[in-house]
Amino acid sequence: MITKTKSEPFQIQDVEALVNWLASFGQSDTGGITRLLYSNAWLEAQLALKEMMNAHGFTAYFDSVGNLFGRLEGTKHKDRTILTGSHIDTVIDGGKYDGVFGIIASFLATKILYQLYGRPKKTIEVVSLCEEEGSRFPLTFWGSGNITGKYTLEDAAGIKDSDGIRLTEAMKKTGFDPAKYRSPYRKDINAFIEMHVEQGVVLDYSNTSIGIVDYIVGQRRFTVRVTGESNHAGTTPMPYRKDALSLSSQFIHYLTEKAKRLDKDLVVTVGKLNVQPNVPNVIAGQVDFTLDIRHFDDELLDHYWEDISQYFSTVSEELGMSVDIHPWMHVKPVAMDPKLTLLSKKTAINKHISFRSLVSGAGHDAQVFGNHCPTALLFVPSEKGISHSPKEYTKKEDLENGVSVLVDYLYELAYT
Amino acid sequence: MITKTKSEPFQIQDVEALVNWLASFGQSDTGGITRLLYSNAWLEAQLALKEMMNAHGFTAYFDSVGNLFGRLEGTKHKDRTILTGSHIDTVIDGGKYDGVFGIIASFLATKILYQLYGRPKKTIEVVSLCEEEGSRFPLTFWGSGNITGKYTLEDAAGIKDSDGIRLTEAMKKTGFDPAKYRSPYRKDINAFIEMHVEQGVVLDYSNTSIGIVDYIVGQRRFTVRVTGESNHAGTTPMPYRKDALSLSSQFIHYLTEKAKRLDKDLVVTVGKLNVQPNVPNVIAGQVDFTLDIRHFDDELLDHYWEDISQYFSTVSEELGMSVDIHPWMHVKPVAMDPKLTLLSKKTAINKHISFRSLVSGAGHDAQVFGNHCPTALLFVPSEKGISHSPKEYTKKEDLENGVSVLVDYLYELAYT
Repeated sequence: MITKTKSEPFQIQDVEALVNWLASFGQSDTGGITRLLYSNAWLEAQLALKEMMNAHGFTAYFDSVGNLFGRLEGTKHKDRTILTGSHIDTVIDGGKYDGVFGIIASFLATKILYQLYGRPKKTIEVVSLCEEEGSRFPLTFWGSGNITGKYTLEDAAGIKDSDGIRLTEAMKKTGFDPAKYRSPYRKDINAFIEMHVEQGVVLDYSNTSIGIVDYIVGQRRFTVRVTGESNHAGTTPMPYRKDALSLSSQFIHYLTEKAKRLDKDLVVTVGKLNVQPNVPNVIAGQVDFTLDIRHFDDELLDHYWEDISQYFSTVSEELGMSVDIHPWMHVKPVAMDPKLTLLSKKTAINKHISFRSLVSGAGHDAQVFGNHCPTALLFVPSEKGISHSPKEYTKKEDLENGVSVLVDYLYELAYT
Repeated sequence: MITKTKSEPFQIQDVEALVNWLASFGQSDTGGITRLLYSNAWLEAQLALKEMMNAHGFTAYFDSVGNLFGRLEGTKHKDRTILTGSHIDTVIDGGKYDGVFGIIASFLATKILYQLYGRPKKTIEVVSLCEEEGSRFPLTFWGSGNITGKYTLEDAAGIKDSDGIRLTEAMKKTGFDPAKYRSPYRKDINAFIEMHVEQGVVLDYSNTSIGIVDYIVGQRRFTVRVTGESNHAGTTPMPYRKDALSLSSQFIHYLTEKAKRLDKDLVVTVGKLNVQPNVPNVIAGQVDFTLDIRHFDDELLDHYWEDISQYFSTVSEELGMSVDIHPWMHVKPVAMDPKLTLLSKKTAINKHISFRSLVSGAGHDAQVFGNHCPTALLFVPSEKGISHSPKEYTKKEDLENGVSVLVDYLYELAYT
């Protein structure tokens, strides 16, 4: 429990201590953090946070799936809620800042406003979303999905973790009995504001404090199987070969160069590749590789995909080889609210804090809210872009700049 | 045991039955053949062959490492030996023809000559070499190596199979006690003639019966490690990436195209490639791939290697990535004897059997003999180039054409 008492005022400088406190739940000796949905560490963190919210003037409560809200009811528009926060769950052996910083920044900024100005005109709720990562159950955005109507309890049916424990069993055990489920769906949310660590290198490399997200990218993922003919590496002249690895390399080289030329915001990754039979002196008969393509514009993704899949089929036909493509993920891009984005920029300008526009290449709760209500997503730097790792790190100064921007930002949204 | 008696003459048409007989030692129900050095199946095959040689007028004997010789002593030059044959050992689950065909063709051709003309002027010895493949012990060409002085018993010291059995233990158990070792080194060999299946597609695709080998290629093998930076596939813009798989693909594409342009006899294979961490949404931080390059001209291999290693280092430096190259095999090309090669061609022309010059992309005992005495290597087709597999197949007609050429060829060498 954080040691600050009700009478001691919170300050922006408290942010790092608060992050360290909340991150300590589920932290191992080596510094990695594992706080999976409905685990003991997860429950301890949510309960401690609830206690702190209540201790500092918020009305804290859980919804039926375990999203935790700390409410400051509006004096004028109590049914128009500014929701701000991020997720409490982590990947396995993750970092301190992912999710936690957004919850703490929202709590601290709201608390500071409360100290200065009392209750807001519109309701502010600080939210600690129960789940975003999909690390325990094969389901992502369980928290934001229940609030926005993307999911209901029915979507949990049959979902199990790797130990075979049902999501609904785990809910019940943690105190969220599905039999008592009441829909967490919310119609009163005027805006959702999320602050998060970038988990990328753009802010760090450009020495910028705040990233203001215009879009969260669309993502498509494919598995590509290239089938050739396995053969003797010494006795098969080059023109007679159907070398699946040579052709896959040609494809990967082409698709990388094409992506670089097409648009600076397009990111394309072949992260996984397996060769059959994978022996030094045998020509590869089969290669499977994954392809992950992301951009904020769906038509550009269409165009890119058409170009490279056309290239795949033309070249493989010429060589008498075959290419089979299996699409397995298709998530559309989500735009952040332009008015909120503009307000983010004005706030940063007024505070003399460096900022830049960004596209988020990773998914966030903000993309689920973005389809439901006006949404803003703000980033602070991740050193060297490292995330989902105990080495995740954001400088104290950047954490403070994030909170500082959020104080003024929430003031504009809820106090004016 | 083959059923033919001493009084029934052998004919060229017997070749397929003889191949099937000798191949039956170590054959599994599914048709694959495993006859590893000094195994029971290996010993049974050698002893059966010895018995047949003795039964048909040859003087059969083993040397100290288990090479089996069937000798027809020359009437005029008994100390000038024409040695002809191939190896009796196989890979694990190999085919019927690899090695065995060469032994049978040499035996049958010599036997037919003996039936027709009696003893030759020069000695002919048919040899069943004990080991070529290196499938049991990490040592190749143990048979030909002992005959030509490449190896002595000392080279077996410390060599063990995957069960930890020493080569020398296995020798002793099979009846070749190292304590009784007498050098198998031979000074009397005038020529070594090997017939073998091509294990490649050139003869089959060009519908040719006989391949006459000019050179056995030099081989070099390398492992290339490309080190970049593992990073988030969504949040790392293309210019900030150090993608080890993208760079490896560029290298493989370049080295393949370069090889195709440089020389039609150059063969270049990347058969094995492993990615770290090999996850769809993570940029590859490290890739290891093997590179196998073969050509009959050592200077061309030098030139090619200099070109691509220069390309590797230039491009990786530009991208701030590193490339480490580990060479682990360097075998020089071996030329077959030009006079013997010409004689092979004349023989095929006289017999009206289709032939073509070839470069052998695979290693053979002939490359060990080629450094010791005038040597010829002749190929018959392998259907679809398939080898080291139960699917290995050569048509009866091609087997017979091989023996037919060998009859006339050995006549020229030993009877005139």
